[in-house]
Amino acid sequence: MSNSIGNLYKLTTFGESHGPAIGGIIDGCPAGIELDFDEIQRELNRRKPGQSKITTQRNEPDTVEYLSGIFEGKTTGTPIGFQIKNTNQHSKDYTHNIDVYRPSHADYTYDKKYGIRDYRGGGRSSARETANWIVAGAIAKQYLKDIKINAFTSSVGEISISKTFQEIDLSKIENNIVRCPDEHIANLMIKKIEKIKKEGDTIGGVITCVIQNVPVGLGEPVFDKLHAALGKAMLSINAVKGFEYGSGFNGSTMKGSEHNDIFNADGSTKTNLSGGIQGGISNGMDIYFKVAFKPVATLMQKQQTIDSEGNILEMQGKGRHDPCVVPRAVPIVEALSAIVMVDFYLQQRSRV
Amino acid sequence: MSNSIGNLYKLTTFGESHGPAIGGIIDGCPAGIELDFDEIQRELNRRKPGQSKITTQRNEPDTVEYLSGIFEGKTTGTPIGFQIKNTNQHSKDYTHNIDVYRPSHADYTYDKKYGIRDYRGGGRSSARETANWIVAGAIAKQYLKDIKINAFTSSVGEISISKTFQEIDLSKIENNIVRCPDEHIANLMIKKIEKIKKEGDTIGGVITCVIQNVPVGLGEPVFDKLHAALGKAMLSINAVKGFEYGSGFNGSTMKGSEHNDIFNADGSTKTNLSGGIQGGISNGMDIYFKVAFKPVATLMQKQQTIDSEGNILEMQGKGRHDPCVVPRAVPIVEALSAIVMVDFYLQQRSRV
Amino acid sequence: MSNSIGNLYKLTTFGESHGPAIGGIIDGCPAGIELDFDEIQRELNRRKPGQSKITTQRNEPDTVEYLSGIFEGKTTGTPIGFQIKNTNQHSKDYTHNIDVYRPSHADYTYDKKYGIRDYRGGGRSSARETANWIVAGAIAKQYLKDIKINAFTSSVGEISISKTFQEIDLSKIENNIVRCPDEHIANLMIKKIEKIKKEGDTIGGVITCVIQNVPVGLGEPVFDKLHAALGKAMLSINAVKGFEYGSGFNGSTMKGSEHNDIFNADGSTKTNLSGGIQGGISNGMDIYFKVAFKPVATLMQKQQTIDSEGNILEMQGKGRHDPCVVPRAVPIVEALSAIVMVDFYLQQRSRV
Amino acid sequence: MSNSIGNLYKLTTFGESHGPAIGGIIDGCPAGIELDFDEIQRELNRRKPGQSKITTQRNEPDTVEYLSGIFEGKTTGTPIGFQIKNTNQHSKDYTHNIDVYRPSHADYTYDKKYGIRDYRGGGRSSARETANWIVAGAIAKQYLKDIKINAFTSSVGEISISKTFQEIDLSKIENNIVRCPDEHIANLMIKKIEKIKKEGDTIGGVITCVIQNVPVGLGEPVFDKLHAALGKAMLSINAVKGFEYGSGFNGSTMKGSEHNDIFNADGSTKTNLSGGIQGGISNGMDIYFKVAFKPVATLMQKQQTIDSEGNILEMQGKGRHDPCVVPRAVPIVEALSAIVMVDFYLQQRSRV
Repeated sequence: MSNSIGNLYKLTTFGESHGPAIGGIIDGCPAGIELDFDEIQRELNRRKPGQSKITTQRNEPDTVEYLSGIFEGKTTGTPIGFQIKNTNQHSKDYTHNIDVYRPSHADYTYDKKYGIRDYRGGGRSSARETANWIVAGAIAKQYLKDIKINAFTSSVGEISISKTFQEIDLSKIENNIVRCPDEHIANLMIKKIEKIKKEGDTIGGVITCVIQNVPVGLGEPVFDKLHAALGKAMLSINAVKGFEYGSGFNGSTMKGSEHNDIFNADGSTKTNLSGGIQGGISNGMDIYFKVAFKPVATLMQKQQTIDSEGNILEMQGKGRHDPCVVPRAVPIVEALSAIVMVDFYLQQRSRV
Repeated sequence: MSNSIGNLYKLTTFGESHGPAIGGIIDGCPAGIELDFDEIQRELNRRKPGQSKITTQRNEPDTVEYLSGIFEGKTTGTPIGFQIKNTNQHSKDYTHNIDVYRPSHADYTYDKKYGIRDYRGGGRSSARETANWIVAGAIAKQYLKDIKINAFTSSVGEISISKTFQEIDLSKIENNIVRCPDEHIANLMIKKIEKIKKEGDTIGGVITCVIQNVPVGLGEPVFDKLHAALGKAMLSINAVKGFEYGSGFNGSTMKGSEHNDIFNADGSTKTNLSGGIQGGISNGMDIYFKVAFKPVATLMQKQQTIDSEGNILEMQGKGRHDPCVVPRAVPIVEALSAIVMVDFYLQQRSRV
Repeated sequence: MSNSIGNLYKLTTFGESHGPAIGGIIDGCPAGIELDFDEIQRELNRRKPGQSKITTQRNEPDTVEYLSGIFEGKTTGTPIGFQIKNTNQHSKDYTHNIDVYRPSHADYTYDKKYGIRDYRGGGRSSARETANWIVAGAIAKQYLKDIKINAFTSSVGEISISKTFQEIDLSKIENNIVRCPDEHIANLMIKKIEKIKKEGDTIGGVITCVIQNVPVGLGEPVFDKLHAALGKAMLSINAVKGFEYGSGFNGSTMKGSEHNDIFNADGSTKTNLSGGIQGGISNGMDIYFKVAFKPVATLMQKQQTIDSEGNILEMQGKGRHDPCVVPRAVPIVEALSAIVMVDFYLQQRSRV
Repeated sequence: MSNSIGNLYKLTTFGESHGPAIGGIIDGCPAGIELDFDEIQRELNRRKPGQSKITTQRNEPDTVEYLSGIFEGKTTGTPIGFQIKNTNQHSKDYTHNIDVYRPSHADYTYDKKYGIRDYRGGGRSSARETANWIVAGAIAKQYLKDIKINAFTSSVGEISISKTFQEIDLSKIENNIVRCPDEHIANLMIKKIEKIKKEGDTIGGVITCVIQNVPVGLGEPVFDKLHAALGKAMLSINAVKGFEYGSGFNGSTMKGSEHNDIFNADGSTKTNLSGGIQGGISNGMDIYFKVAFKPVATLMQKQQTIDSEGNILEMQGKGRHDPCVVPRAVPIVEALSAIVMVDFYLQQRSRV
């Protein structure tokens, strides 16, 4: 059960970064969706390594092969099987890791959990897995045409956008390589990442996601609250350390008289500190949330670590890794959002 | 599916605050656990309304009736059905709400979702539901004797504990009514809540939870990462707006060379910014996370709102509500943590 | 997971025959169904012990208490919690069983599985559990008003109805205590059961169920074929040893040229050996299937058996048990059918 | 959810017979199993078309590509992705079907359910899907080394083995192409199938499956009884119309005094009409059940049918189909049995 997300629109995935392929099965995709395959590829390209000077230079074409569930360009309602071949694995880069537990990676925990480990790359904890999510998310987006999902980089290290998302032109997200819609801040972020990269170091950041035109009524009251499902999805992304929606942590410092969203006559609200969700159910206002990413653990610096016998030794990353994961994580946040939204959309459809 | 939590230790719940009873079914509880019923009641009493001057004065005895799954004081492995009768509903307090949507409550979204609504209290969105979670969590705690779960109030409004949890004596949590183990800060918090209550207002806060003595290897790699399941559980609690674990949002401002947890020879780590979880799997270090609560939406002040026809009107809370939900939410955070931990513990047991 | 049935309309149950109560939670029941509570009670009365001379004389009132999910007589979309108190347990009847494994009961397997056992009655394997199913099934029937579900006793021992269900007047099922719509055969069955009862013995039988007015398109292609879900549900009933639908076992002796159902121009078929389901999906024709019940294992005769130490001893049933379970199982077959049908109905609704 | 089987050992599949590939993901396979890939292929070859004169002459190599979850020949505990390419589709054979609903196939129901249909072959209802099950079942068998699972052809049309499985030498199943361990009956069956094939007709049959060396305690009491899960799995196989275990339908004609299995001192039973399962839980005796298959619906004879407009027309099968599906279904019955058994085995492991 640990490799699936969703109930009615369910993605199940497989694959390690250094095996023959990664891929997945989308079960429950509605029939009759006319797929724009170029659009799916465009989403994959947004996540792709090697896309700019501030990402890893690893170069995977990330081409999806669709194996089932599609006929004459349309979904048939049967499961969509797909795979993305691993073509550029450079497993050599990892031979130095055979017996070594990289700090703040999953090597140690995998070994203890399973008693066996594919030491070439991170196994299932490799971020390559997220390419699968992009495929399922891109298809979900095409089904949910009216719902608009936009994520962007809102901070890199201490450099942060100070405007609210309502003050931002979300159409400018793709205008720069760091995916921050404020051009001035974007430039500062890019410079920061370049500096960090030169130091052989890495840096964390925050992504903000906005979901608009959501129908009222999506989300389930108790254990499948809409924001809880979004939160769980986001916390599934590698390196994510925090999730907040609406007023978030800042809301904890406020008084009720400041925080309550007063209704307009049409059911919309004057403010939106609730973040578009009340009692776990969408209220038709914009949904927005933030996702915090820690810095990537693989450094191009020497670090002390241990091997599986407990010997202390020094290691230095040799694979090709991102100095900041956030720009490439923007489409991942959108994809998981889309998967969650379509799932709740279908659940609500079964009801009315 | 929306009223269940867990896979192998699964709690399914029912009940509204103004019906005859709330309750639940625990499916998958291991057989042979000798239950300490007084201990379960003590946990319920920590959540109970009316327990101190800073909580709602509503007074529910919250007595659990066990209906099945227990024989001669021990669990039998069959489902544990239980109920808690609603005895003190004061439904009159709510008759003024029949047609009114309270601001930042779930009234509006429930009505739109289901087309029908039990207007006496919040329906399933009532915090009374959390008493069910306490029962299942208290039983989970009794099974997981070695794992220690302690939550405490770490901030109320702007008043915040500045020490790390390692610098705090967790045995002092229950020493005061706000459940903050730092006596000085606790007093400031209590004063703050009393002041807010006098104003007819409410205030938010933050709870920190620490889980200790966790075996290595709990958690599933991709979509059931241990922290993602904890996060989803916490985001299921009423009024929660954010979740972070380990370094959290602050980790997003750090560099990898600062953030990485360097191993000791025995596999433990010198720092613990990872928060006891790497790659979604427990690494044996202390798990810790923070949960942000917004201020309670029901105010003893006049607020503008609308009714179901879209008429704008004024309303004022007349029920008995908490000025700050955080002190009573401490045992809820612990209970959900225990439910999540036992579920992953059993999953891992099926594997080795 | 083992105490739940259904995905979108999900019943989770609890309760042993000798604890305080049995009951369940129906999660996913659509909102706004106006419930006829008398009708639910009528269904329970059809299952009730003590209803006629050919059933056990145990007398349980089987009164349902609804605890949630219903407001002003209508379902609210939130979970329906309910309980049925155990009022007439006669646990004394079972004290002789403390340490004894009754032949062809679940005593031995429960003890080995869980290492502990509530020896008063059959624990979860008690047929009392099926009262819970009746409640959920009766509500499902009220939602699925157009779909007609009728089960009847088609054989008791060797006495069997020879007519096809199409030749039978299904409105006559309740005309006699054995629930066989053919009056002549019914009388033979009743005499047979009376004779068996006098001998202190028991006898098996077969129930046929017919589901009519089913929309085309219910059922899922591979692992949730409509007949597979019906089969699993039926095989969950105590004492069931076999399930067949459409042509069933007899179909295995036929040639394709005899077995194929030729289409009429409107998509209906001239014959219906398929049993209303093709490729796991309803085709709009009548669904029909048969369920085989073994004789009840508790005899009012001496039998050899063992105790938990492996000592061989003699025992004789002293509880009040049915000489033939089939007449009381008729409403159970219908109830589970209704639960399965509503679940697939809602699944299909999410899709179109 | 409809394309998955299992809870802790979960197979999710995709693929139509006429797309690029079929395949699946096995989630929850325990780590550290040393896989015998030749043995998996041998199981696939038992299912393969073209293996003898009494099966379809379609010739698919059915070679599995393993895409993940295996490292240096051992399972790693991560999901095993695999695919089997479709190489010999002869889609031309099906062009005559574009608009035609074949009698007793799923064409009509798929079209009505999804509003779209891949008319080349049967879509997900193609028996090619079962090759995926063989892969997951063969891996399950390698994990469950001690549990022996043997299925065989026990009848073809009216020709039936009269011996009980205890009187049969199960090692002789593979000695003939019809997979009946009684050589004399096997020859009669083969002649029958050859005759039927010459007529352009098809014939049904029955498979018996025996599962031995099962530990006591597998199976869950109420809705996941071991036999109910086996029954559901078997009813998922194309063309299956019935399932019975232990005494089966014949048990319905018996008296309790004849049917009860009397214990030996060691907990084994003198007879085994229960079929190795009591109260849904394995009792350590041999589990056995029968699965009834209807005749294949595709005939090499002219049949009347309709097209999607309701025009009545004549059609004749031109694809290459089996005159009797039973011999090739023997390994399918075993594979699904293995998947069910490993799932319950892991569930029980989580408990003790």
